[in-house]
Amino acid sequence: MKFSIKRSEFLKSLADVQRAISSRTTIPILTGIKIQASEEGLTLTGSDSDISIEAFIPVEDEKNNLTIDQAGSIVLQARFFSEIVKKLPDEMMQIEVLDHFQTLITSANASFTVNGLDANNYPHLPVIDTQETFSLPINLFKQIIGQTVIAISTHESRPILTGVNMVIENGKLLAVATDSHRLSQRIIPLEVSSALADQKYNIIIPGKSLIELSRTLDERHENIEMMITENQVLFKTENMYFYSRLLEGYYPDTARLIPESAATEIVFNASSLLGSIERASLLSHEGKNNVVKISISPELVEISGNSPDVGNVKEELAYISVEGESIDLSFNPDYMKDALRTFGQTDIRIKFTSPVRPFILVPSEDNQNFIQLITPVRTF
Amino acid sequence: MKFSIKRSEFLKSLADVQRAISSRTTIPILTGIKIQASEEGLTLTGSDSDISIEAFIPVEDEKNNLTIDQAGSIVLQARFFSEIVKKLPDEMMQIEVLDHFQTLITSANASFTVNGLDANNYPHLPVIDTQETFSLPINLFKQIIGQTVIAISTHESRPILTGVNMVIENGKLLAVATDSHRLSQRIIPLEVSSALADQKYNIIIPGKSLIELSRTLDERHENIEMMITENQVLFKTENMYFYSRLLEGYYPDTARLIPESAATEIVFNASSLLGSIERASLLSHEGKNNVVKISISPELVEISGNSPDVGNVKEELAYISVEGESIDLSFNPDYMKDALRTFGQTDIRIKFTSPVRPFILVPSEDNQNFIQLITPVRTF
Repeated sequence: MKFSIKRSEFLKSLADVQRAISSRTTIPILTGIKIQASEEGLTLTGSDSDISIEAFIPVEDEKNNLTIDQAGSIVLQARFFSEIVKKLPDEMMQIEVLDHFQTLITSANASFTVNGLDANNYPHLPVIDTQETFSLPINLFKQIIGQTVIAISTHESRPILTGVNMVIENGKLLAVATDSHRLSQRIIPLEVSSALADQKYNIIIPGKSLIELSRTLDERHENIEMMITENQVLFKTENMYFYSRLLEGYYPDTARLIPESAATEIVFNASSLLGSIERASLLSHEGKNNVVKISISPELVEISGNSPDVGNVKEELAYISVEGESIDLSFNPDYMKDALRTFGQTDIRIKFTSPVRPFILVPSEDNQNFIQLITPVRTF
Repeated sequence: MKFSIKRSEFLKSLADVQRAISSRTTIPILTGIKIQASEEGLTLTGSDSDISIEAFIPVEDEKNNLTIDQAGSIVLQARFFSEIVKKLPDEMMQIEVLDHFQTLITSANASFTVNGLDANNYPHLPVIDTQETFSLPINLFKQIIGQTVIAISTHESRPILTGVNMVIENGKLLAVATDSHRLSQRIIPLEVSSALADQKYNIIIPGKSLIELSRTLDERHENIEMMITENQVLFKTENMYFYSRLLEGYYPDTARLIPESAATEIVFNASSLLGSIERASLLSHEGKNNVVKISISPELVEISGNSPDVGNVKEELAYISVEGESIDLSFNPDYMKDALRTFGQTDIRIKFTSPVRPFILVPSEDNQNFIQLITPVRTF
């Protein structure tokens, strides 16, 4: 294998592929990055066996300044390799595989010789044997990921809850995640070809995969293609394939958790409420009970927090409108902050049922398509 | 005590004073910040007993928007207090001490009540009983600090080497630091009043103090005043006092370590050599022997590094001029990188004596006032 390429372009693909590579893998060759050169271009592959990312750098795209002198393949230690490429002195770089998988990396006067591994020993990527493809707008899909992954569980005691449940049905994509204390749900319309219109898909994608996927998604592209098989999902953009395994099992029925009626409804600006919660939680983080209390009455809407050692805080909240019964309840401010951040600058409606039942946050203009749910903390 | 102040200005002084405060202190009250209000303004004090910083916020400076309603003092937990001040909602804030040292912090609708401590129990700052003052240009003094602290020892086995030795004599300030493997020395001219012209000062300032001092020094001010007593040094700017204890003992005689002659001299651009060293050290960091080798001959100047597990690197160096004998030697690339960074973009001359004797780096235009010295690593 021998090729030369513009270093900055090579680095971009390298950075994408490297997201899949973990230093804690139990399969030694997966700490490496696979480089494959063919007449058409270079293919870089990284994998931690849960996630695999493949990036393609085509010869025909002139900005890559890519010349393939000899086809072939090699696996190089990812950590060193990308450090080396970053620090090379020239705009161009060359890579050549010598005898015994020794690989020569050169740029201007600098030359590195590193020990490579036989690419034939690199695991094969999953085979995606389906023609059924969904097209998703990238900016909307990144939004959905950001809005739901906050609620995935970080504990392995119920592995299924470490994923996001995605259900495709009736021209809609529903994404939901819950760690059993809180829940995030977002629904978007989906353009589905008539051949797939009657199909239902119900999959659970590991939250970690979605977070990494979101980081690689370049908003310069408009759409991403999604292909689903029994235990894998593949996301395709122009020059990148992102594979993730799916979680096996049945996701709990979350629809019944969402209360349908409300005793108290109050409308806030999300970012102004976030500021107040951040202040109210400053001291509570210190104590054993990380809770903030909200009191809503026709006269006063107030939050308060306290730590016996440090002191207490209270703040009268500015709200847009309030309706219904007076209510006092306590909640984990970290859940509230995570939820509020997913709404950005918009106005939100919070609907309370009782001090011990979950309450929900929705955009003030839309009750249906985006819901954050939080279970209160009982303090009595 | 009761006052109101513009929050942004209060935060600036708070941040300065907080540099002195360590969470690991053994004296509980020193985890707090002392606030003292008088008719003239506010004095904030932080200390870890090695370093003490006092900042003054005058009433007369209108940008502070400071109103003192009642004089007094309090000690508040530094960590919480500054988090609270940062997160307050309004441009203005008020502080009022209530009964039992409870302190009320308010801003717009938010109010915090925190437990304070009696300021009478806060340790007294060192007394500086001297009228002898040196005036130092701030930008030059920051330079000296940056150029010398790289060579202080981080081991407590010889505490004296954790400091920078400063000698004032004959209208010059000499600063030198060494960890016994390398040495940094800088000399600057000093304007000394005729009363002090015959005096000699020889002090050792903890490197940690100088690093913190450098961070607080605002280059909007031109000069800093330095006052020296037997075991303390005080640095004064307009509204800040920075106290540091001095290290006790005798600093080793370092002048004899600096070689006077050279067998080989070579001139490089410092930043281009730094890039080459960074590449050459990429792999050596991995091995047990973190060394890089340089070979200088009339035909070729080359550096190389290797790690048995990963591979090797070599690079032909671009130099400006070379004189004298051919030489091969090995060095710790971390020392070389630290040293090269203190020269910025300038050209430097490296003077070698032998493969086992220390070599020095000096600005190519100045042999005397700035020297970085590094001891080679014996590899045979």
